[in-house]
Amino acid sequence: MAQILVLYPHPQDAAKFDRYYFDVHVPLAKKVPGLRRYEVSRGAVSGPGGPSPFHLVAILEFDSLAAIHKALETPECRAATDDLKNFAPEGVQIQLFDSEILT
Amino acid sequence: MAQILVLYPHPQDAAKFDRYYFDVHVPLAKKVPGLRRYEVSRGAVSGPGGPSPFHLVAILEFDSLAAIHKALETPECRAATDDLKNFAPEGVQIQLFDSEILT
Repeated sequence: MAQILVLYPHPQDAAKFDRYYFDVHVPLAKKVPGLRRYEVSRGAVSGPGGPSPFHLVAILEFDSLAAIHKALETPECRAATDDLKNFAPEGVQIQLFDSEILT
Repeated sequence: MAQILVLYPHPQDAAKFDRYYFDVHVPLAKKVPGLRRYEVSRGAVSGPGGPSPFHLVAILEFDSLAAIHKALETPECRAATDDLKNFAPEGVQIQLFDSEILT
């Protein structure tokens, strides 16, 4: 399996961000071909000793890194990516990787 | 469910880091009470348009954020945390959060 990990920094208006994220962005992201599992943080993200620089974390699972790269070329994924500017103008941190379950 | 997300920046010696991580740190982390699932990146982590600042990503799942905070107080978790300095002196980024599966 492989993951797209998306880290959203704190937005200016958290309530507005959350509304847009769950009402508009999630339905767009769910349409991305090859998406097997879509997990998001709920409530505050924190660091081990205090606040986190991030407001929300999303983990999107695909079969493989090859499947992710294929998905990135689809109109559905481009629509989801283009949508980021509408609610996350602060930018996002995105990591892509193959992964393995150890336990 | 809830997650501990650990992002490791690029180490000075990747092969040495990987050897230590999988041979020593993983067995320590697996002993942390309440750990339900332990997933790690395999191969290179990348950004959407090129290299990532991170070498390895680990996602450790627990039942809840409360279970994570309880786990953080255990000797097993302290041993795993204390071990970080032995192979990741560059530091790590850790995020804790409750999570929900949307798909």
